[in-house]
Amino acid sequence: MALVYDGAIQRLIDAFAKLPGIGPKGAQRIAFYLLSASDEESQNLIDAIDEVKTKVRFCEVCGNVCESSPCPICADPRRDRGVICVVEEVKDVMSIERTHTFRGLYHVLGGAINPMAGVGPESLNIPKLLERLKEDGGVHEVILALNPNIEGDATTRFLSALLRPSGITVTRLASGLPVGGDLEYADEITLGRALEGRREA
Amino acid sequence: MALVYDGAIQRLIDAFAKLPGIGPKGAQRIAFYLLSASDEESQNLIDAIDEVKTKVRFCEVCGNVCESSPCPICADPRRDRGVICVVEEVKDVMSIERTHTFRGLYHVLGGAINPMAGVGPESLNIPKLLERLKEDGGVHEVILALNPNIEGDATTRFLSALLRPSGITVTRLASGLPVGGDLEYADEITLGRALEGRREA
Repeated sequence: MALVYDGAIQRLIDAFAKLPGIGPKGAQRIAFYLLSASDEESQNLIDAIDEVKTKVRFCEVCGNVCESSPCPICADPRRDRGVICVVEEVKDVMSIERTHTFRGLYHVLGGAINPMAGVGPESLNIPKLLERLKEDGGVHEVILALNPNIEGDATTRFLSALLRPSGITVTRLASGLPVGGDLEYADEITLGRALEGRREA
Repeated sequence: MALVYDGAIQRLIDAFAKLPGIGPKGAQRIAFYLLSASDEESQNLIDAIDEVKTKVRFCEVCGNVCESSPCPICADPRRDRGVICVVEEVKDVMSIERTHTFRGLYHVLGGAINPMAGVGPESLNIPKLLERLKEDGGVHEVILALNPNIEGDATTRFLSALLRPSGITVTRLASGLPVGGDLEYADEITLGRALEGRREA
């Protein structure tokens, strides 16, 4: 007898093992946890998955996720409509919001230029960004908040060249030592960027 | 605005973050994965959770999980009814089955004695084991396959003392060096047990 777990448990393990960051052992642990969990807890998980799939959509303006389009950030009259922060993914919006230092709007590209993975500028949500800048003449700054890696840097250079002729100020996030970091453990590229970007003390 | 994610996404992240081995970052990653996944894949996950909660139960004989009680192992006429292997958890049944070296029956205790966590012998599925041994006079060996840690050892000693008077042979798994292991990296307790349990070469 090769199969030890009865069908339903194995199917649940397989379903969880397909999710990112969950291996076969973790999926098994979760399956047994759910088996012993209250019906209320398992139903809560089912409802949450179902709700996200039926209710959540992407904001027509910025590409953020929302239950009503435009999203709460685009619809908020207190946000500064003169600054658009361009990010790769929806979760980056959350990361920047958590800093409580940005009060403008966002634009989610849906990724970064990565020729190795076949992602060119045409795969990204760039036309909509150009449309926003054209239609809303009040935007005076675009902050390119892409990941500080090869793909993010390539996308930053591409967008910077694309937007600069329009006369809008195009900025990028500072690279340097992370706060609480240690010179000794900084990699040479980060330390190099921190030196290049040095400011008067 | 403190909330950035709209309600449904946050509820899904919270639901996943409650599962064992998934932290807030992992839950966020899974939520966005499901958001972009096909309806078929998310429905498959929902169905798998629902199916396990409605179909799967515990075997009345051995405590293993199954869709029909007794479980396929207890019901299999080719298994040796003279040997019962006692394990802590249902997943241990799977681990032992994978070795393909055991053809007897199982008994799942549902844990191990752990006074610090308030788990005494009375919390474990021990009465049912005694009943099985009494009713089915044909059992000649009980293998105590508990985890090689403090709780497992305490449970092994407890069960060994409890069962020995009945005249049934009570054995435990060998402790020693893992196959493919290295003397240099073995901890002293494991190495000590390997010495104690040495066999003629």
